[in-house]
Amino acid sequence: MAVYTEVPDDALIAFVESYGLGEVTAFKGIAEGVENSNFYLATQTGQYILTLYEKRVARGDLPFFVGLVEHLAGRGVRCPVPVHDKAGQAIRELCGRPAAIFTFLDGMSVRRPQARHCEQVGRTLGALHLAGAGFGLERPNALGLGGWAPLFAQFEDQSDGIAPGLGDLISRELEFLHRAWPGDLPSGVIHADLFPDNIFFRRDEVSGVIDFYFACNDAFGYDIAICLNAWCFEQDHSFNITKGQALFRGYQAVRRLGDAERAAMPVLARGAALRFLLTRGYDWLNTSSDALVQPKDPLEYARRLRFHQSIDQASGFGLIQ
Amino acid sequence: MAVYTEVPDDALIAFVESYGLGEVTAFKGIAEGVENSNFYLATQTGQYILTLYEKRVARGDLPFFVGLVEHLAGRGVRCPVPVHDKAGQAIRELCGRPAAIFTFLDGMSVRRPQARHCEQVGRTLGALHLAGAGFGLERPNALGLGGWAPLFAQFEDQSDGIAPGLGDLISRELEFLHRAWPGDLPSGVIHADLFPDNIFFRRDEVSGVIDFYFACNDAFGYDIAICLNAWCFEQDHSFNITKGQALFRGYQAVRRLGDAERAAMPVLARGAALRFLLTRGYDWLNTSSDALVQPKDPLEYARRLRFHQSIDQASGFGLIQ
Repeated sequence: MAVYTEVPDDALIAFVESYGLGEVTAFKGIAEGVENSNFYLATQTGQYILTLYEKRVARGDLPFFVGLVEHLAGRGVRCPVPVHDKAGQAIRELCGRPAAIFTFLDGMSVRRPQARHCEQVGRTLGALHLAGAGFGLERPNALGLGGWAPLFAQFEDQSDGIAPGLGDLISRELEFLHRAWPGDLPSGVIHADLFPDNIFFRRDEVSGVIDFYFACNDAFGYDIAICLNAWCFEQDHSFNITKGQALFRGYQAVRRLGDAERAAMPVLARGAALRFLLTRGYDWLNTSSDALVQPKDPLEYARRLRFHQSIDQASGFGLIQ
Repeated sequence: MAVYTEVPDDALIAFVESYGLGEVTAFKGIAEGVENSNFYLATQTGQYILTLYEKRVARGDLPFFVGLVEHLAGRGVRCPVPVHDKAGQAIRELCGRPAAIFTFLDGMSVRRPQARHCEQVGRTLGALHLAGAGFGLERPNALGLGGWAPLFAQFEDQSDGIAPGLGDLISRELEFLHRAWPGDLPSGVIHADLFPDNIFFRRDEVSGVIDFYFACNDAFGYDIAICLNAWCFEQDHSFNITKGQALFRGYQAVRRLGDAERAAMPVLARGAALRFLLTRGYDWLNTSSDALVQPKDPLEYARRLRFHQSIDQASGFGLIQ
């Protein structure tokens, strides 16, 4: 939610010229995307988003991210796609950073999703999972099961400073998940961060998906579990099963879940809650109170985790058939 | 350079509906305007900027700011103007803050102005001064001569912490300015903050002026002096007299300076440098190192001030005739 790099007008004009996009008519830093600097860019040929990749995004991952959105867009998923310069390059450099110009995606994110939005999210996620098939690159999930214990080790000794007992909750959960995690679920490319910020709507219809910078190869069911956490809890932290039903209904209208995925859903939901509890916990302890991006409350995800611990089958989340 | 208030989609949609601007097609917080939260807003009818006024802008000043841009635009100055809602109101409320929707201004600011830009700035400033005539509201300059000593009093005892001797430089300068300040120069509405950030260009032509939130009634020559400080110094803090010449040439092509204004220019330039030295000095000491908006270096203006102290007539800034 910030602009980390300032782009001088002369550097921008030369950069845009190399794409043949015509004269720059407007250019503004925008508060979107936690990992990168993003700019609204208008030229005589249209509207675009210019992204400068800051250090949290590994340069070596860019071909995956940029190639993925092109692959998905070619298979009907609406998402921003990179514009190629006159020499055919999509990933360039600007102000010492990797940079790309993307097509502009209309729409806006919903702040308080309703069940009708959750159904749309389910459909969109299902379509995304199917469309990822055949994409030639792979990216392991650095924030999957294997990444959680090392991440926790970085702040375990301070975790009770966030809330008493939090360290114990996480340690026990890690033990459980390493024991119970399903190893052979249907997998492919997942978005892995499909929060309300990252889906745009127009008139209650999804207009597109943004921010694929956590996308990776992992179990499809885990991506659904992330959405259960991100879309189906209320402000008061209660789980809204109507929203869960809508999410599964939408998803299954596009891709039907298998028995193993259904059975695994409670474990996947716990893992997804733990993943966000861990990254938020780490950020909470490692962000000064005045920083450019305010850290999000990790305890929301401790509460979600405790809820999931009480669920022993997918019907508890609203998966009816 | 920040968004301080989050606007939920449902609140935004209801707000835009009351203007009859059609469906919202895009909405993004933008990093523009230090004092307010600004958003890029696109609807079926066009592109706009939504501004939410945060506490640094006094509610009572809004009729002046909003009325002024309408007055100026009606007299040929290109600037964003407020859109009126269906009931005819330009100043509304959104998320508990005063809010207004403005027309979108094409163009972008220049980071490293050349003499040709300075000439355009001079013309634009002259036109703005003429166009302000007849505007019915007045706003005293809170950051004019009378405001400097009280502002300095708030950090005088810490000023040498910024740089040794700074407190002495400012104290002596305040004494000088209170003695030497000219009292009867041609006056009217001035922009009072016409830095490169606040003028947009397209192909080296000014496309418009933004951010009138320091505008007030004061001497026109003082507004020129602010521009000398803001536009005519190089990165290495040297004064570029070619740029000064261009600024005056542009200004005088539109509004000719009188003898009293010419004679006063060295004093006005010192006052303008002190004004930014004081506000930056205050912000420097009162902004934590991690804040959303990084404070600007006050010492740039101590150097400008020392340069101006060496000049005893306007020709030293490039005013030839």
